[in-house]
Amino acid sequence: MTDQPLPYDPAALQACASALISNVRELAQAGWTPATSSNFSLRLDQAHAAITVSGRDKGRLVEDDIMVVDLDGRAVGRPLKPSAETLLHTQLYRRFPGVGCVLHTHSRTQTVASRLYAPQGNLRLEGYELLKAFEGNTTHETAIDVPVFANTQDMGVLSAQVDALLDRQPLWGYLIDGHGLYAWGRDMAQARRHLEAFEFLLGCELELRRLGAGA
Amino acid sequence: MTDQPLPYDPAALQACASALISNVRELAQAGWTPATSSNFSLRLDQAHAAITVSGRDKGRLVEDDIMVVDLDGRAVGRPLKPSAETLLHTQLYRRFPGVGCVLHTHSRTQTVASRLYAPQGNLRLEGYELLKAFEGNTTHETAIDVPVFANTQDMGVLSAQVDALLDRQPLWGYLIDGHGLYAWGRDMAQARRHLEAFEFLLGCELELRRLGAGA
Amino acid sequence: MTDQPLPYDPAALQACASALISNVRELAQAGWTPATSSNFSLRLDQAHAAITVSGRDKGRLVEDDIMVVDLDGRAVGRPLKPSAETLLHTQLYRRFPGVGCVLHTHSRTQTVASRLYAPQGNLRLEGYELLKAFEGNTTHETAIDVPVFANTQDMGVLSAQVDALLDRQPLWGYLIDGHGLYAWGRDMAQARRHLEAFEFLLGCELELRRLGAGA
Amino acid sequence: MTDQPLPYDPAALQACASALISNVRELAQAGWTPATSSNFSLRLDQAHAAITVSGRDKGRLVEDDIMVVDLDGRAVGRPLKPSAETLLHTQLYRRFPGVGCVLHTHSRTQTVASRLYAPQGNLRLEGYELLKAFEGNTTHETAIDVPVFANTQDMGVLSAQVDALLDRQPLWGYLIDGHGLYAWGRDMAQARRHLEAFEFLLGCELELRRLGAGA
Repeated sequence: MTDQPLPYDPAALQACASALISNVRELAQAGWTPATSSNFSLRLDQAHAAITVSGRDKGRLVEDDIMVVDLDGRAVGRPLKPSAETLLHTQLYRRFPGVGCVLHTHSRTQTVASRLYAPQGNLRLEGYELLKAFEGNTTHETAIDVPVFANTQDMGVLSAQVDALLDRQPLWGYLIDGHGLYAWGRDMAQARRHLEAFEFLLGCELELRRLGAGA
Repeated sequence: MTDQPLPYDPAALQACASALISNVRELAQAGWTPATSSNFSLRLDQAHAAITVSGRDKGRLVEDDIMVVDLDGRAVGRPLKPSAETLLHTQLYRRFPGVGCVLHTHSRTQTVASRLYAPQGNLRLEGYELLKAFEGNTTHETAIDVPVFANTQDMGVLSAQVDALLDRQPLWGYLIDGHGLYAWGRDMAQARRHLEAFEFLLGCELELRRLGAGA
Repeated sequence: MTDQPLPYDPAALQACASALISNVRELAQAGWTPATSSNFSLRLDQAHAAITVSGRDKGRLVEDDIMVVDLDGRAVGRPLKPSAETLLHTQLYRRFPGVGCVLHTHSRTQTVASRLYAPQGNLRLEGYELLKAFEGNTTHETAIDVPVFANTQDMGVLSAQVDALLDRQPLWGYLIDGHGLYAWGRDMAQARRHLEAFEFLLGCELELRRLGAGA
Repeated sequence: MTDQPLPYDPAALQACASALISNVRELAQAGWTPATSSNFSLRLDQAHAAITVSGRDKGRLVEDDIMVVDLDGRAVGRPLKPSAETLLHTQLYRRFPGVGCVLHTHSRTQTVASRLYAPQGNLRLEGYELLKAFEGNTTHETAIDVPVFANTQDMGVLSAQVDALLDRQPLWGYLIDGHGLYAWGRDMAQARRHLEAFEFLLGCELELRRLGAGA
């Protein structure tokens, strides 16, 4: 015990794992994590995050499916290979001390919206009461531009683009073309509120477009 | 006990809270309360209503998430800040002694319909057997005009518009642009029947429009 | 006991009620019985059917919500007013000794299809493997014409039209404009198979039409 | 016991039956097996497969609904008539020693996609991150052609066409016109991953087409 320093609090990890398992199960039941896709994390402390191991069925997560990474995305404790996309989580924890949770899902609405708006690079959400669900908004008389990044298997490239955008504007989420949505927040509750608001508003936009009234 | 008058019956509040919790959970599971939106109330007595506290996750309500307001929308008993939209509930209880329940939801169908029909100010529902679900209708050979109000953060303005409309026509619900639906009834069962009928018929109208056959 | 003849077997009624309650709950959970609409029956014997009492919430049926009618649609045993639509059930039991179950639902797909195809009076289902789900079909190389009747509150008129059509062709179901679907079969299992096949195939037809490829 | 050789391990059959029952129930709850359609199998050993008996309600399977067939599709052990489509399962087990599970479903998305793309004989899936869900793909920068075969009640004809195609290209699934999807994999988990990926990507393609942006 004495010569093996604990880089993080195991009780905190257990709490994170338990919260991830129950919340992700609900997202999986909503159909937002098809075919073992998607990944999810919670901040453990200033230097670590708990994140889902790549390739696991998100509807059946167990404690063993949650691993620890440092904020450079390297596995800590267990010799597991973290998902390449881990960097997209840890860059947010590194940059924003107030971010405590990052959720990445693949709903059909998110994937279709990403394909549809990739050519113009973003999707404007405007005139919805639910814009108030995003932390910092107190009125529906506002607009949010959801960025759509090109997909790439090179996470260094993608995270640099995200960083550049975060230098220019506040953001609670973004789309990746043909891929899905990243959303985050202070804690699990706020990150889920943001995620649900994005999903709902993207769904409204697609529906209005199908009805010949969308942007 | 003697010098602290009870402004309402605590047993009645407990019954209301229990009914709100179980019914709202079902509405949340249907996806009609995204991102902690929506609010719900039951009449407690001639002078009070029990209403959901603003900002709580509607799929996980507990007794503590139900507060008491008087019919001017002011918190009673607990020092909680009621939702600004509380006025839209209490104006109905004040005006109609026979109204016992008010439900406000944000389904995608309701939000999209509100955006689509806001320019013309209402949406006509006609030729459906389910029009008989609205109290007072005994045939499908009738029509209902669902008003669509402009959204505003000023509830005084909105409630005055609702009042003016209620002077002119009987009504079991209305839409607010980009926002959602208000529906009400004699009790929870009737208010839910009205809410479900609106949701179903709005959904049919949107679907017919997508199919090139709608109004 | 001796001077009060039992017009039907109470144990058979109990079995019917139990089957109706559990099956209808599943149909309600699928969203096919909005706003307390829809009705359901099982043949009790040669002279009686068990049918849901009008206006009850189909997701929460209890034994008390099931009543007995004779094959002219008159209440037997309990002084309840059967739904006007009871006649559409009993005409099938009277006409076909082999019919044991009649299901009437109001899904959005059924209602929208009924509105869309009412002008032409029927909807042709063709080229689907699932046509084999209808008793008597053994290949997908066939077609079914689903009749769409005009809606009316006069069940005498409607049942006469149904009877006239049954004189001309075999049938496992029909639509009523703006209203919903009637489907039936030998027993609950076959009636549900027919109901699900109609719902699925109507849904495919609407989807193909939305995609610009339908009839 | 001694003079009745066991052609397969009963414990293995029990394990297969249990896995089929629980997995198929989930697929049925998703609505992918309407009206008792669809069939499902697991490899038992080098010479046998366990497969669902034809015509059973896939949401309520019990052990008795699982039968054993040899790899020519003949019933083994119990005198049950296997589904005609059994051949489409066993040809995969016969051809590929590494295939352990075959899933055939009838979702609306699959049926509609099959009708829509039957004239051109296949549907190209391209540019989706979820292409990585198919075994062997490590990037989204790839494409998959999903073949669409004409429907026929002659399984000999159909399985010969499938065999001819398998001679030319690797494949994890195909559509049959107006009918549904076949998907397979190393084991149940991989076959379900492939099935879910097909369902999701077919759904995205249809949605993009509805939005005027599809192939």
